[in-house]
Amino acid sequence: MPMNSIHSFSEIVGKYKVIFFDAFGVLKNYKGLVPGIDRTFQYLHDKKKEYYIVTNDASRSPTQLAEKYHQAGLHAISKDRIVSSGMLAKEYINLKVKSGIVAYLGTPDSAHYIEGEGIEVLPVSQINTHNVDDVNALVFLDDEGFDWNSDLNKTVNLLRKRTIPTIVANTDDAYPLNLGEICIAVGSVATMIENIVGKKFIRFGKPDSQMFIFAYERVRRHMHVTKDQILMVGDTLNTDIMGGNKFGLDTALVLSGNTLPTDVESRINSSGILPTYICPSAVVDY
Amino acid sequence: MPMNSIHSFSEIVGKYKVIFFDAFGVLKNYKGLVPGIDRTFQYLHDKKKEYYIVTNDASRSPTQLAEKYHQAGLHAISKDRIVSSGMLAKEYINLKVKSGIVAYLGTPDSAHYIEGEGIEVLPVSQINTHNVDDVNALVFLDDEGFDWNSDLNKTVNLLRKRTIPTIVANTDDAYPLNLGEICIAVGSVATMIENIVGKKFIRFGKPDSQMFIFAYERVRRHMHVTKDQILMVGDTLNTDIMGGNKFGLDTALVLSGNTLPTDVESRINSSGILPTYICPSAVVDY
Amino acid sequence: MPMNSIHSFSEIVGKYKVIFFDAFGVLKNYKGLVPGIDRTFQYLHDKKKEYYIVTNDASRSPTQLAEKYHQAGLHAISKDRIVSSGMLAKEYINLKVKSGIVAYLGTPDSAHYIEGEGIEVLPVSQINTHNVDDVNALVFLDDEGFDWNSDLNKTVNLLRKRTIPTIVANTDDAYPLNLGEICIAVGSVATMIENIVGKKFIRFGKPDSQMFIFAYERVRRHMHVTKDQILMVGDTLNTDIMGGNKFGLDTALVLSGNTLPTDVESRINSSGILPTYICPSAVVDY
Amino acid sequence: MPMNSIHSFSEIVGKYKVIFFDAFGVLKNYKGLVPGIDRTFQYLHDKKKEYYIVTNDASRSPTQLAEKYHQAGLHAISKDRIVSSGMLAKEYINLKVKSGIVAYLGTPDSAHYIEGEGIEVLPVSQINTHNVDDVNALVFLDDEGFDWNSDLNKTVNLLRKRTIPTIVANTDDAYPLNLGEICIAVGSVATMIENIVGKKFIRFGKPDSQMFIFAYERVRRHMHVTKDQILMVGDTLNTDIMGGNKFGLDTALVLSGNTLPTDVESRINSSGILPTYICPSAVVDY
Repeated sequence: MPMNSIHSFSEIVGKYKVIFFDAFGVLKNYKGLVPGIDRTFQYLHDKKKEYYIVTNDASRSPTQLAEKYHQAGLHAISKDRIVSSGMLAKEYINLKVKSGIVAYLGTPDSAHYIEGEGIEVLPVSQINTHNVDDVNALVFLDDEGFDWNSDLNKTVNLLRKRTIPTIVANTDDAYPLNLGEICIAVGSVATMIENIVGKKFIRFGKPDSQMFIFAYERVRRHMHVTKDQILMVGDTLNTDIMGGNKFGLDTALVLSGNTLPTDVESRINSSGILPTYICPSAVVDY
Repeated sequence: MPMNSIHSFSEIVGKYKVIFFDAFGVLKNYKGLVPGIDRTFQYLHDKKKEYYIVTNDASRSPTQLAEKYHQAGLHAISKDRIVSSGMLAKEYINLKVKSGIVAYLGTPDSAHYIEGEGIEVLPVSQINTHNVDDVNALVFLDDEGFDWNSDLNKTVNLLRKRTIPTIVANTDDAYPLNLGEICIAVGSVATMIENIVGKKFIRFGKPDSQMFIFAYERVRRHMHVTKDQILMVGDTLNTDIMGGNKFGLDTALVLSGNTLPTDVESRINSSGILPTYICPSAVVDY
Repeated sequence: MPMNSIHSFSEIVGKYKVIFFDAFGVLKNYKGLVPGIDRTFQYLHDKKKEYYIVTNDASRSPTQLAEKYHQAGLHAISKDRIVSSGMLAKEYINLKVKSGIVAYLGTPDSAHYIEGEGIEVLPVSQINTHNVDDVNALVFLDDEGFDWNSDLNKTVNLLRKRTIPTIVANTDDAYPLNLGEICIAVGSVATMIENIVGKKFIRFGKPDSQMFIFAYERVRRHMHVTKDQILMVGDTLNTDIMGGNKFGLDTALVLSGNTLPTDVESRINSSGILPTYICPSAVVDY
Repeated sequence: MPMNSIHSFSEIVGKYKVIFFDAFGVLKNYKGLVPGIDRTFQYLHDKKKEYYIVTNDASRSPTQLAEKYHQAGLHAISKDRIVSSGMLAKEYINLKVKSGIVAYLGTPDSAHYIEGEGIEVLPVSQINTHNVDDVNALVFLDDEGFDWNSDLNKTVNLLRKRTIPTIVANTDDAYPLNLGEICIAVGSVATMIENIVGKKFIRFGKPDSQMFIFAYERVRRHMHVTKDQILMVGDTLNTDIMGGNKFGLDTALVLSGNTLPTDVESRINSSGILPTYICPSAVVDY
């Protein structure tokens, strides 16, 4: 895994049959699409390469996420090409919760996501003494859509009363809001509550392997591919690159988001997380 | 430090010249004063023993805290007998912050507390682009009095912009609200933000020695006393008992609060924190 | 995921097509095989059910591990039915390290395991100023086979000099030695060093999903099976049960190892990790 | 607490009545005394300023530590001017352990230190089934003097059998051995074992306030001094500077040890720990 200084993305993308892309900091940022990223998808289409978006986002369904790209003018990203941490939460609930209430923290959009047959999906704010004994799971979906003070205190007391599986559908600590400002993500809020109640939550999201398995299994439904034919492209060392490396994929760190050209070297050395390649961005010059 | 099963408080209190009491779970609980606790203070008065309340509470000033006891009918607790973690925060700011703004999270009551000459005390909600460069310290005082979502996000971004001392005036993770329900304390909120911004906050509160030094120095202004003549009485192993032990005091764990008769043995064995004595409560039968 | 008190293993095993077993505490303990466990494998054979051993053991190769079972009289466990965390470490190295030296901490038996074409496998004790620049990966394999004081200090300084992928092939903190005594596992040693050098290591082992994927992919080479047709059987909540649950399998906690009948209820409630079933042991009464 | 770029130590030392010095990285390093440091002590003597060495060192008694300075030609450092974390461990044991065995990990030199009336001090290696029930405390003193593999495993099992106070007399994670090489300190080893056994150890050492109280009380036996008349000088942000700040002292970070001129700014910004001053070294140009 030698780190050969900086490569152009055009130079390396041709070596792989399938590309996994992180979303934020790679395809888009707080200002909109990364300029020129449409050329990358034109290239992938022309060369008949497969691609998936692998994202720690449980705030919206793949359909809603895909619509956002279409509105921005990027039509290459259809809903079936999106693998989100929320989909793993949904899969878990479908497999393990057969009846009763699934309580959640998040927006109605995010909740829509986890709905399934036989279960009732309710915001934590609607849990009360009458229905608390029917709550069979709790899901942290999004940092918006609830009152932090009252609903987080309610969540703590719910978890003290009921021994139920608790799922965190986004493992990020924070996410960028605009140039220089960040927001606390639901992953941080969940960690705070996990420490208070002393229980283990089930977390879905990069760098966890389950995200990569999900994407890997999906691509193998359509084609035969081995791990060394897949490239994971991301802007964050401890999620995209760590997770890609661990799953056995080659990895490309792009400098269009979280990791800046000025601190890439010190971040790699201090974390010990080594991408296969470093590229200025995921844009193909073509 | 042998643990000789359960003692009555009457049996052991006579051996000491000075008693330090935790407040919540020892003198009072969510229903009001612990029944009979006034007899303890009558006894201490009659026997000319000194006493102090040593509390991880930065929500109100000693004057306000004392008033609460007076209203409940316990007049023995005057403001000069109260040592709170908020007082250490105040002392720190007086010594180390000479000018500018001290931003805080908490109620106006808690803020009143840290006011001092030459500094302006402002809630985080009132920090803006015009005054952000004058903020010279930040204090976490109380879990109430601010909007958790907007003000905690604002706090994260303030700490990313400004390298300033950040003080947490209450190290507790949670506190009891009523029978069976707890509240998230500002200590947990501070830990969440510390992890996101990656900076080290300055924490005041038991089990930290500084709480005990503060009380110890205060008592020694009035009388000569050595550490082995002081008993720390508390209901929580990892704050009251851990801190008292470490500072070199004898310790009495009471079972009227956080630690229940049914789980005292397993909690001591699993934590490894050994009180000198275990008592049903701090009430003197007299 | 209801927890219906205690079930006999015989009662539930019939519902599944494939069984994954943890090794220690389920099939064997410090005294040898769990009495009667051979009946379970006779049953599985008669009913044509598939089974795999999924173990956080990187101290020996599957061949060597299988031999141990054969010597103890259990011939049903062949090397191709064993999935160990060491196999994931080996796969990672084969995919990501193409040349140079892979340094390791462990016994020669454990090292034998990770050998591959084009790489040289050397114990940390043999790293010196002449070959240190050729070290391209480090693997924590076993807690035996090296001098803890000198080789762990050498490891710290190796990781300060070289930015290389570091793999921990056993995530356990400790393992049982005999009745009442435990041993520090290499996972704990790795965590200590990770904290000192401040780098992120790559960990393989339950509860991580990658162990379950590896076993799942292997079984699907031979047969068609879905996740709800597989049962994970283990004695430890935070590895076997947590990992099985997260991967979407049904789980059976057995009380023949790490979790005792007297504390199963309090451990489930305090951890929040819920097995689908609880069984006295994995022995089939048949 | 403004940070006014770099000051010469000569410029600031005159403002204070008492100076607390860290030892390693300030007065000495792996090559011996910091060149010119004798001029500092000549200056302090001429100006009648008091000084103390405040060090996280429990490997040798103050007498032995002072001898090392004398052998190196620095006679100004007498044993009564040394405050070590080992002295706090000793004080704790004297106050809280009245009889039986105190087991320890460390060299015979370090153990000599904690000896007291009525107790027997034994290395962990000499604990056996006959005397284990008499062990009333355990102390982590030094990283040398014991077999890491066998004695650390023995320590884990001792702490599983006996609920006893456990003291860590050195909170450092690692210490420098020579240019570019470090050693694992006993603080790291203690943390590993604390995590395995799940118990809370009592830690003495900077940044904990108890080190500073101990020194502060000692200086006040000889003279009247307030906290703002004391300067803490150290080379490490998260022990010397954090601890000094928290105790309410002014602090000077020197760049002759752990913190280098090239990374001082980024370390201060990323940790949020602000010294009152930054100086190239503690040498007075005089």
